[in-house]
Amino acid sequence: MASARRIVRLPGPFTMRNGATLPDVDIAYETWGALAPARDNVLLLVTGLSPSAHARSSAEDPTPGWWEEMIGPGQALDTNRFHVICVNSLGSPHGSTSPATIDPRTGRPYRLTFPVLRIEDIARAAREALRALGLPRVRAVVGPSLGGMTALAYAIEFPDEVHALVTISSAARATPFAIAIRSVQREAIRSDPGWCGGNYEPPGPVNGLRVARKLGLITYRSAAEWRQRFSRERVDVRETGSGPFSVEFEVEAYLEMHAQKFVGTFDANCYLYLSRSMDLFDVAEHGGSVEAGLSRIRARKTLVIGVETDFLFPLDQQEEIATLLERAGRDVRFVRLPSIQGHDSFLVDYDRFGPTVGSFLQEIPV
Amino acid sequence: MASARRIVRLPGPFTMRNGATLPDVDIAYETWGALAPARDNVLLLVTGLSPSAHARSSAEDPTPGWWEEMIGPGQALDTNRFHVICVNSLGSPHGSTSPATIDPRTGRPYRLTFPVLRIEDIARAAREALRALGLPRVRAVVGPSLGGMTALAYAIEFPDEVHALVTISSAARATPFAIAIRSVQREAIRSDPGWCGGNYEPPGPVNGLRVARKLGLITYRSAAEWRQRFSRERVDVRETGSGPFSVEFEVEAYLEMHAQKFVGTFDANCYLYLSRSMDLFDVAEHGGSVEAGLSRIRARKTLVIGVETDFLFPLDQQEEIATLLERAGRDVRFVRLPSIQGHDSFLVDYDRFGPTVGSFLQEIPV
Repeated sequence: MASARRIVRLPGPFTMRNGATLPDVDIAYETWGALAPARDNVLLLVTGLSPSAHARSSAEDPTPGWWEEMIGPGQALDTNRFHVICVNSLGSPHGSTSPATIDPRTGRPYRLTFPVLRIEDIARAAREALRALGLPRVRAVVGPSLGGMTALAYAIEFPDEVHALVTISSAARATPFAIAIRSVQREAIRSDPGWCGGNYEPPGPVNGLRVARKLGLITYRSAAEWRQRFSRERVDVRETGSGPFSVEFEVEAYLEMHAQKFVGTFDANCYLYLSRSMDLFDVAEHGGSVEAGLSRIRARKTLVIGVETDFLFPLDQQEEIATLLERAGRDVRFVRLPSIQGHDSFLVDYDRFGPTVGSFLQEIPV
Repeated sequence: MASARRIVRLPGPFTMRNGATLPDVDIAYETWGALAPARDNVLLLVTGLSPSAHARSSAEDPTPGWWEEMIGPGQALDTNRFHVICVNSLGSPHGSTSPATIDPRTGRPYRLTFPVLRIEDIARAAREALRALGLPRVRAVVGPSLGGMTALAYAIEFPDEVHALVTISSAARATPFAIAIRSVQREAIRSDPGWCGGNYEPPGPVNGLRVARKLGLITYRSAAEWRQRFSRERVDVRETGSGPFSVEFEVEAYLEMHAQKFVGTFDANCYLYLSRSMDLFDVAEHGGSVEAGLSRIRARKTLVIGVETDFLFPLDQQEEIATLLERAGRDVRFVRLPSIQGHDSFLVDYDRFGPTVGSFLQEIPV
């Protein structure tokens, strides 16, 4: 299959936040839009837990990307102005070094010997990748969900290298509710005998991943949306079988379809590491409090977007980021969107997200 | 262990809503407070998914019941006035006939040969149990959660036998969000190899039940409560081990403790049947619409209680019950409580639930 994916190898060993070292780190990425001669129009896009660097289609890879409608000439992430680079997270199975890749010291996959992964590691790996590509400064960092955490970590750790910051449906630290949800998802994977303590061969813990993905979907959307979409509609049992607990409601068929699509495309150990990295993220580690941590950010402009129906990264977590940045004297725009699709609204509600992100980025000089 | 549990055998075969027949049905129950000579002071208490009939301690069984603080002399369910009888649901493993009991026709447990269980079956089995005990009329039916559905079904199907009705954190029909949550819980059980297609021997699908229980706990409480209780507190890793995905946050330790308590006390197949019965419940089956179904209720007084932080049986579902009953000309009191403990508030927030339920029941003549 055609791919527009590029890989950059970081120049030296990579030291993780917990002190462990990875001898070789590869980071996968894709780009859209021309790099200006002055190299001053870089827009770094960091992703949620599951997407790859394929955020948009291109001549090399015409398949739709995960943020297809948001990127392109004249779009919110305007490729007539920006050189957009989407980086695959360290720890993700979509091309970057991860628990699923080979440890050159042993010749075998890292699996659970991969060090504890922190959001700061994902941010630093993205930054080192940009430096290796000769792009030491970014005009804007944009990140939704886990990517919003990565964007915050980037702006905190490399304050002089970020001109503008956009966080979407993210958090300065995880709530106990979100930790609990992710903990149950991980337990579903880890208690699947197919997981084998992390040492599985394909297909691995398929049932555990299915449960984790379905629970993820429930928390990524909203109850209000599902009432509109599915109500109590039934499926045709001639298609699904009529066992006593088989799929009967449309909402069950929806979960089933998405679980089947996910399994086989995402490595279980990578899921565990990325999931835990969100639990562990806490801006308060950077200076003693969330306020102190956020005050390290020097971006000239920040856009913080939250969605009213998001119960995984609820609106008050977005307000917290915006309020504390403002208190630290930063130029912040906080936008509260009434989208009905919950946490995933940024993947669906382009009518609202396009103009909100686009108008902010138009004001960023390149 | 001392038990105050009694069993009543229904006099003949029991025909389920789907047409199947159970040859023998036992229903477990406990009682508190004297029966009046006129037998006109019966208060029927029907339960949520997991409790037994042991709602309160007694001389015979001094262990605390699941609604200990709500029942007793001078309490909300005042045993100086009412003969309180708590009935264990048909399909529950706590003494009533269920998928875990022996089918007399085969000499083996029903397991998945148990017919599809409906809320209406649970209500009818409770009613037949009362008739077998010589108690054909109830002064009040009180039910929280699944029990609220049972109470609604009872009042709809036997309108002349219910004087007063109390539903707590319940619903006239399940939302797709609640169906989705329960569907994932069931999948966790069913995909555990220990489930063996329903034909397990002890201990059965322990891991699946753990995941189902933890997910249940998440949806029974509220994110706001957990922020207050747990914040991002860590546990002492010397007690929990320090594996890469072991318990690290207090909220994880809380889930773990409750999961361990649950596993071994609840039969997995019973869980599946009771869980599905909630998905299937729909008052609209009684007359073509929820409004038509509720209009069949002839209770003289109804109390509907909802909790603001409940996202499994959200407040607007309580409002729907109250509004439609009122529209049908019934005497309804709707109380919206600001308890922070979510769906489970009725098990915790006695300061609010006691007076709310107690003042309503005081007005019921006995």
